[in-house]
Amino acid sequence: MEALVLEETHKLRLGEIPISEPLGPRDVRIDIKTVGICGSDIHYYQHGRIGPFVVNAPMVLGHEASGVVSEVGGAVSELKPGDRVCMEPGIPDPNSRASRLGLYNLDPAVRFWATPPVHGVLRPSVVHPADYTFKIPDSVSFAEAAMVEPLAVGMQAAKKAQIVPGDLAVVMGAGPIGMVTALAALAGGCSRVILTDTQQPKLTLGASLGAITPVNVAQESVAEVVHKLTGGWGADIVFECSGSARALAGVFEPLRPGGCAVLVGMPDGPIAYDVVSAQIKEARVEHVFRYAHVFGRALSLMGDGKIDVKPLITDTFKFADSVAAFDYASHLPPASVKAQIEVG
Amino acid sequence: MEALVLEETHKLRLGEIPISEPLGPRDVRIDIKTVGICGSDIHYYQHGRIGPFVVNAPMVLGHEASGVVSEVGGAVSELKPGDRVCMEPGIPDPNSRASRLGLYNLDPAVRFWATPPVHGVLRPSVVHPADYTFKIPDSVSFAEAAMVEPLAVGMQAAKKAQIVPGDLAVVMGAGPIGMVTALAALAGGCSRVILTDTQQPKLTLGASLGAITPVNVAQESVAEVVHKLTGGWGADIVFECSGSARALAGVFEPLRPGGCAVLVGMPDGPIAYDVVSAQIKEARVEHVFRYAHVFGRALSLMGDGKIDVKPLITDTFKFADSVAAFDYASHLPPASVKAQIEVG
Amino acid sequence: MEALVLEETHKLRLGEIPISEPLGPRDVRIDIKTVGICGSDIHYYQHGRIGPFVVNAPMVLGHEASGVVSEVGGAVSELKPGDRVCMEPGIPDPNSRASRLGLYNLDPAVRFWATPPVHGVLRPSVVHPADYTFKIPDSVSFAEAAMVEPLAVGMQAAKKAQIVPGDLAVVMGAGPIGMVTALAALAGGCSRVILTDTQQPKLTLGASLGAITPVNVAQESVAEVVHKLTGGWGADIVFECSGSARALAGVFEPLRPGGCAVLVGMPDGPIAYDVVSAQIKEARVEHVFRYAHVFGRALSLMGDGKIDVKPLITDTFKFADSVAAFDYASHLPPASVKAQIEVG
Amino acid sequence: MEALVLEETHKLRLGEIPISEPLGPRDVRIDIKTVGICGSDIHYYQHGRIGPFVVNAPMVLGHEASGVVSEVGGAVSELKPGDRVCMEPGIPDPNSRASRLGLYNLDPAVRFWATPPVHGVLRPSVVHPADYTFKIPDSVSFAEAAMVEPLAVGMQAAKKAQIVPGDLAVVMGAGPIGMVTALAALAGGCSRVILTDTQQPKLTLGASLGAITPVNVAQESVAEVVHKLTGGWGADIVFECSGSARALAGVFEPLRPGGCAVLVGMPDGPIAYDVVSAQIKEARVEHVFRYAHVFGRALSLMGDGKIDVKPLITDTFKFADSVAAFDYASHLPPASVKAQIEVG
Repeated sequence: MEALVLEETHKLRLGEIPISEPLGPRDVRIDIKTVGICGSDIHYYQHGRIGPFVVNAPMVLGHEASGVVSEVGGAVSELKPGDRVCMEPGIPDPNSRASRLGLYNLDPAVRFWATPPVHGVLRPSVVHPADYTFKIPDSVSFAEAAMVEPLAVGMQAAKKAQIVPGDLAVVMGAGPIGMVTALAALAGGCSRVILTDTQQPKLTLGASLGAITPVNVAQESVAEVVHKLTGGWGADIVFECSGSARALAGVFEPLRPGGCAVLVGMPDGPIAYDVVSAQIKEARVEHVFRYAHVFGRALSLMGDGKIDVKPLITDTFKFADSVAAFDYASHLPPASVKAQIEVG
Repeated sequence: MEALVLEETHKLRLGEIPISEPLGPRDVRIDIKTVGICGSDIHYYQHGRIGPFVVNAPMVLGHEASGVVSEVGGAVSELKPGDRVCMEPGIPDPNSRASRLGLYNLDPAVRFWATPPVHGVLRPSVVHPADYTFKIPDSVSFAEAAMVEPLAVGMQAAKKAQIVPGDLAVVMGAGPIGMVTALAALAGGCSRVILTDTQQPKLTLGASLGAITPVNVAQESVAEVVHKLTGGWGADIVFECSGSARALAGVFEPLRPGGCAVLVGMPDGPIAYDVVSAQIKEARVEHVFRYAHVFGRALSLMGDGKIDVKPLITDTFKFADSVAAFDYASHLPPASVKAQIEVG
Repeated sequence: MEALVLEETHKLRLGEIPISEPLGPRDVRIDIKTVGICGSDIHYYQHGRIGPFVVNAPMVLGHEASGVVSEVGGAVSELKPGDRVCMEPGIPDPNSRASRLGLYNLDPAVRFWATPPVHGVLRPSVVHPADYTFKIPDSVSFAEAAMVEPLAVGMQAAKKAQIVPGDLAVVMGAGPIGMVTALAALAGGCSRVILTDTQQPKLTLGASLGAITPVNVAQESVAEVVHKLTGGWGADIVFECSGSARALAGVFEPLRPGGCAVLVGMPDGPIAYDVVSAQIKEARVEHVFRYAHVFGRALSLMGDGKIDVKPLITDTFKFADSVAAFDYASHLPPASVKAQIEVG
Repeated sequence: MEALVLEETHKLRLGEIPISEPLGPRDVRIDIKTVGICGSDIHYYQHGRIGPFVVNAPMVLGHEASGVVSEVGGAVSELKPGDRVCMEPGIPDPNSRASRLGLYNLDPAVRFWATPPVHGVLRPSVVHPADYTFKIPDSVSFAEAAMVEPLAVGMQAAKKAQIVPGDLAVVMGAGPIGMVTALAALAGGCSRVILTDTQQPKLTLGASLGAITPVNVAQESVAEVVHKLTGGWGADIVFECSGSARALAGVFEPLRPGGCAVLVGMPDGPIAYDVVSAQIKEARVEHVFRYAHVFGRALSLMGDGKIDVKPLITDTFKFADSVAAFDYASHLPPASVKAQIEVG
């Protein structure tokens, strides 16, 4: 089939690649509609690897996807052809020790789209387990449904934080993951989010998304802003979504005693961590790796109008322009958040 | 001072009563603006007692209150005259064992407004500890601020439920507490609330408040509605706010495996409880007694527009008409939720 | 093969029954060594059913089992012939919604030994998934290993309680499940257990098992004992293991504010539940249905000497005497706890 | 009264110092019996400061103390003269925001013995709030009771870990805090502790305390030991008690997916923290600052024989030899854990 294939570093090709996918009894076949471009797709394009995952053979990119069911396996009753769906891109071994505990995202044997050697979904169709395929509400477009995958990271962060209704949260970093984390935090019970970045256009967009106070940390200290706002007490939660070593070094400063820091952003290497600052507040620190059990939750919140990702979809490309889309997304302007490709 | 005094059962009087309240160093004096009428006020009016609490001497009614600070004690710096505030009506012993654990609402020594022998606040002014007095956002009216007290019960329920973002909740009972619990559940992360009652006007009002699906349990089974909606799985949370023995007997039916039931409504006596139904689902059951640590959270959610209590304030009376207000509230029409008295 | 077969109510037979069990790639074949007799085995023997589960065809009894691996499937590397093991008797569908959440014990499709129509293991051998087969430490005998299954119920209760080190617990009911719950509670961090029953021999045995204070509730009130011991505060946890309606009616009396009640015992029908008593203390109530993820934990605690089940194994029978064993166990003397059958 | 006074850095004096302590209504006066020497006492002796806390005036040292009540305030009924007790050395403001949440150890206004400018208790008597004074069981000696304070740090760590019965724990660092954390972890539900250090005498002592496996990390890798023991899965909990930057850099290596690291040791400065390693396992990281609500729990576990601190009390001095005791404790031999001074 025709697909967007990463041949090797810096070499993308829209063209034929042989993919044969038999339909198992608990599988569905899906015609792909929309696929978002993720930072990891760009990273493979630019560097040919992410950590231990190396592109040694041509690989189809793309893992943020929505589509329409075209065929269902013999043991699938909950989905039928014509259903509008989005898909969780990782398929774990259900019998692994992590999966049996409910922690399937931590199963080292998980097969994840567009992570070598597994093909992604920038192609006309894919076969996927019904258990990881989710019907989307009528009010949710294919473009929005393709946003569920990045939103799921924010949902996982919000879940880990164990938000108490009315919590005040800081979200460090106004990139795509910071944005969806802010949305998930607000939908998940926070009353307000303090969003930080050094790029004003991102903050301006972020501030338009809800009860979000932007703080440009090139100009002012987020700890000072928070302490002023809370009478010196601090924020209940800090979501670190920038991956910046500098942000991470100060992650406990705006936190209240007994608060929680959720580390979402992935820094390049070990960071400086102020143990004593965390101890004085007995901070709880949670870490996020992808997500588990949140796709349905994200869709419910979108369907019921509590999360609106439309403002984050800033750029849309045709499938025929996929290579150009990747070149564009490799140098995304500061006011852009998410570029998507319409496949179907 | 002039106050609404319950002389004895069925005998209310608006008139003078001597109350002398010295201002301690950590106290503030507050001019009362608005006071809501609670079911417990009505119950004392009608029956002269609630359980072990008996009205043996004239007692001022009212505990859902907002006002303006007129004077502050010498050790109070966080409030000043002119501040618009609402107040938490229970004052615990900070050194009790429960209070030291953070469970001050469970301190048996708590002094609670309009619970014999403690006077309530249907009167021009009151002295109160600054620690239990909360500044209200500019966007929140005195009428809304007087709703924080009942809302706090719903907030406590939402907190106890440990909502995971995107949860589906059932709220049984569309009285004032059911309504505020539905609002708190939605603000606290639920995607949708299924609200049940047998009175259609309450359900109609409830359905207008947000992502709320009304179910008239005189006509259909909530368990069936939920199972249809969730493919047989069930709701993540059931908030029981009716206190009805019949509702309580079926509280586990709509629940999913591993779900949580929060018992908020107070039934008249022991209820029939289906242990095996709860076991098969390994339900977690939480119970709510008033609230702790939620006033500030409720105000944040109101100030940031995530909770709107205005539609619940259905009837407003002048202080001079307080006795009539109580007679009205004793027979509240089904479409009414909350009657308030403007004191100041 | 030869097995203990329940033909119909009251009709047990030790004799041949055709069972053919192919070995799947992730399965192991096990030579059975020891099988304990559970109250549910007795119940099927006496009544031919438990709730919706009806014995409509001859069924082998027994589900508390240990043995030795004799053969392993092609994809099994963690076990080998000769390994001494015990087995978790329920096999869930790993792809069910409950299983994926880690709640495999709540999967309605679970196949559980000696629950119609699934055969139990009072027979020479069985084929079982490696994932639910656990190596036992050298220091643990086959008899002790066959106690892991009932102990697992106590472990599940202890896990649900979320014991904080040093908690004081009440265990209501000194039957086999009460005994193992007391052991699990002590191993799991409780400093002391108050064990109640009306039969003095059970209490005497229980009191010999560790830091356990027996209370004969035919003679004194457990609430009074606890309040005296704790200066009126109450116990942190109450494990209800009797299933007695009368015990359940008083389950909140000995509890402290903010404490937890774990309902383990299964009463015959709905019980009287005092909602207001639970609310005043904001009790958390947990329910136990079998167990999940605890077999390995129980074996670790036994292997490291923190749980000793040997005193609970009061009666041992030869396989040839299985029918007599069941007749004995149907009328167990009060000082007996567990009867076992040595199969291999 | 006569006391061990730190005049300034390196200058200790056993002699008179005027201390006048009135007895408040909720206070008790205690004759001091035994006081342990803590690392922080030594640090003030050697350096005159710990972080922002500077010894600017003569200060009595010592905060690990037991004694006998000699006098009680008018509002104290739970204690009486002659009661054997130990004391929690920090007195918080019960009305602070942290204290009201139950987090009194995080109250910045806490007054803590032997932390400038508050006097410690190496002196004949002290006045202390009854709420922070704990009766000790008859079976617990004054020397053991003076160990409750350091043990409380281990208890706080065990509490934060939220141990599930049967957990496997690693304790990094076999100093006094590592030792008590190992004891608390075992009493709190862990089946086994892997204890690491580079000093063999400490490990040898540690291994004698219970189900403790010593690992000399100068010779072998704790991650390898744990992975071998757990079939590659990892430990459920890692308690970091060494404060060593090198140990902290590897804190996630022995951890299982979904495990918990508790950071107890205080390093000198920011440490290198491997965010991605923590993310891949979605580790939960907890931090400990002193303790709250654990003195009574520690005493229960000691009284019921689940924690034995006697092997940790390696050196005992007379009050008259206090200065020598401090010189000895400043250069404690590797096989020593705790030096104490008998005051009364």
